[in-house]
Amino acid sequence: MSGSKQSESGRVEAFSDGVFAIAITLLILEIKVPEVGEHGDLWRALGQQWPSYAAYVVSFLVIGIMWVNHHQVFSYVVRVDRTLMFLNLALLLVVAAVPWPTSVLAAYLREAGPSHVAAAVYSLVMVAMALSFQALWWHLTRTGHLFDDAVDTAAARHTRARFALGTLAYPATVGLAFVSAPLTLAAHGLLAVYYGFNQVAVPVREVS
Amino acid sequence: MSGSKQSESGRVEAFSDGVFAIAITLLILEIKVPEVGEHGDLWRALGQQWPSYAAYVVSFLVIGIMWVNHHQVFSYVVRVDRTLMFLNLALLLVVAAVPWPTSVLAAYLREAGPSHVAAAVYSLVMVAMALSFQALWWHLTRTGHLFDDAVDTAAARHTRARFALGTLAYPATVGLAFVSAPLTLAAHGLLAVYYGFNQVAVPVREVS
Amino acid sequence: MSGSKQSESGRVEAFSDGVFAIAITLLILEIKVPEVGEHGDLWRALGQQWPSYAAYVVSFLVIGIMWVNHHQVFSYVVRVDRTLMFLNLALLLVVAAVPWPTSVLAAYLREAGPSHVAAAVYSLVMVAMALSFQALWWHLTRTGHLFDDAVDTAAARHTRARFALGTLAYPATVGLAFVSAPLTLAAHGLLAVYYGFNQVAVPVREVS
Amino acid sequence: MSGSKQSESGRVEAFSDGVFAIAITLLILEIKVPEVGEHGDLWRALGQQWPSYAAYVVSFLVIGIMWVNHHQVFSYVVRVDRTLMFLNLALLLVVAAVPWPTSVLAAYLREAGPSHVAAAVYSLVMVAMALSFQALWWHLTRTGHLFDDAVDTAAARHTRARFALGTLAYPATVGLAFVSAPLTLAAHGLLAVYYGFNQVAVPVREVS
Repeated sequence: MSGSKQSESGRVEAFSDGVFAIAITLLILEIKVPEVGEHGDLWRALGQQWPSYAAYVVSFLVIGIMWVNHHQVFSYVVRVDRTLMFLNLALLLVVAAVPWPTSVLAAYLREAGPSHVAAAVYSLVMVAMALSFQALWWHLTRTGHLFDDAVDTAAARHTRARFALGTLAYPATVGLAFVSAPLTLAAHGLLAVYYGFNQVAVPVREVS
Repeated sequence: MSGSKQSESGRVEAFSDGVFAIAITLLILEIKVPEVGEHGDLWRALGQQWPSYAAYVVSFLVIGIMWVNHHQVFSYVVRVDRTLMFLNLALLLVVAAVPWPTSVLAAYLREAGPSHVAAAVYSLVMVAMALSFQALWWHLTRTGHLFDDAVDTAAARHTRARFALGTLAYPATVGLAFVSAPLTLAAHGLLAVYYGFNQVAVPVREVS
Repeated sequence: MSGSKQSESGRVEAFSDGVFAIAITLLILEIKVPEVGEHGDLWRALGQQWPSYAAYVVSFLVIGIMWVNHHQVFSYVVRVDRTLMFLNLALLLVVAAVPWPTSVLAAYLREAGPSHVAAAVYSLVMVAMALSFQALWWHLTRTGHLFDDAVDTAAARHTRARFALGTLAYPATVGLAFVSAPLTLAAHGLLAVYYGFNQVAVPVREVS
Repeated sequence: MSGSKQSESGRVEAFSDGVFAIAITLLILEIKVPEVGEHGDLWRALGQQWPSYAAYVVSFLVIGIMWVNHHQVFSYVVRVDRTLMFLNLALLLVVAAVPWPTSVLAAYLREAGPSHVAAAVYSLVMVAMALSFQALWWHLTRTGHLFDDAVDTAAARHTRARFALGTLAYPATVGLAFVSAPLTLAAHGLLAVYYGFNQVAVPVREVS
């Protein structure tokens, strides 16, 4: 119908890309201009903001890698149904929310009690992100017909267990939050890099 | 003329998509980092912010579904006249404004008197959004020639009454605002989901 | 070279569109959540913010119409040289700045003395926008070879005087600022609508 | 596989463009609405904000020119590997961060002691940007196969020394920060304009 225009899935991708790009760029608003007194030391004030810098870098990686994964999956999607639209909106709702737990964690990382709560909230948002991405993957592999013909749907279905297993790391970070907030933040950074280099590939049929 | 470049309607869509994506992502700026005293409880402070979370989710759905509808309609638009340009700008003006009534409602949802006013303002913005979308639809069905040839313009004209009827729900939420602000917010969430699953389809001619 | 990818001018357009869409959507951050005391009246507090609403609507129109014009011109541009790139960056620098004079004018519109200064600043930014758009148009008509072949460059050159004449309205609003700030804001709204409906068309050669 | 959709490198470009466009437009949030007392002079208050205006213009140029360079390079990239993805994310992390050192420099430019620290931080972010762009260029010239066939990879490798030499200007501005903060800001503006007009061209093979 609208053949000469962008494909339906291309449009969903473009909108999603927009949300990813804006959420990742809004992260910087969390880092404030430090205030120094009359004879205050700006280096010192800047140094005390290290939780903000660390939270910025980790959340940037998290959103960046999630964008890479989202795109890899959508590069095999050629049709969009209403459920996929909603599952994608749910994922974007979590991605767009990331600047908030980032700010909360940066604000409380150095305060003994609240730091655990802040880290748990951060981890819970990551759990929500992993779950919504997984729901999207289940819907795609269950229906099959939304994929490009090249995708081996049966094989794709078999990746679900590995996907789910990988996702177990996120609930574990909720527990870690009550041990150490800085460790939790570091764990999320490492998880992002790990998933950046170890993605579950979308299985493609051999072309004979 | 500019045949090798993006079509005129594609360009309006891309700009509109940008505004939708930015407005939906700016919503998160409304959720603040809660402040806790010396021995304050961060869980408790986070819990007291529930109106912000609820308002975020509902407004995210509202903008997300409006984007889906906007795109469905524009996927059948192949020509753009000056009136369509203005009606679309008017719709975007309302969409881009949504973060503000969201903040107002989140700020006053738990305060007896002002909560009704805040909910009424939120509902009024939704009325404005429904009206501007409807104006756009009337212009498209009245002129006809802006549509793709596949669109059955006569049938499309007949959908207007159902469109208008559906829109009556929004003025009703203005009344509901004076009964209960939280109920009003819930109603907008339900309306968004309802319209997400029950869109008036653009009628397409049978291809013989 | 990069033939299978987006054309050079398409890329400049896409980047410019992004800046236009973001600047227009950031305008809403200027409208604050009003504060009311214990028994304060939220309707009243909302009403007192009318300068913010007016400034939002006018600046939205200004950026929206400038986007329409920018696109109309770029739909005839097929080549991009370094000067055009810089002139376009200069225009975007002014467009991206609009949220700031909008906030200043909204903040001071009701205060006798400062209102004139704020309105003058707003008008000066509009003068800068008109001048940078005109510089872009002069460069395009002077060089000619950046245009699509269909453009009648000689005729396009003749539109410069009318372009320049139209732009004279903006310096006049700087003077008007010292008479009345609300009138100045209204004038900018009217100018935007006027230019929305009365653009100087890009002259195209008759195809025989 | 996804042949009918956007190419892989086109998608990375579109995402990068989004981040560039958002970061450049967020710069304006740094310029505040000045506060004036009862009989205060708004002109004066606006004038005292000159560091904010200067920092806005310089950072706008810096991001704008970096966008031009990023695009020039990516217009010759047709394949994307995981390392390129990460190096590009690293560059975007720095680009998206620019609004923050801009705010810091604007806030402290007129305060004797802290101005040097703020200028050094600004310069260090520019060093990070130059280094990450250079890392991206090294990876492209080292691997070669990510380039369009038209690119003369051997010749491209020879440009590295000139690239690296040009980048030496940035560490020098860190030293300059301890001499004068306003001079440092001016130097960054000049460097941006210089690189805007003197890019190291991507060497292309003669087509016989």
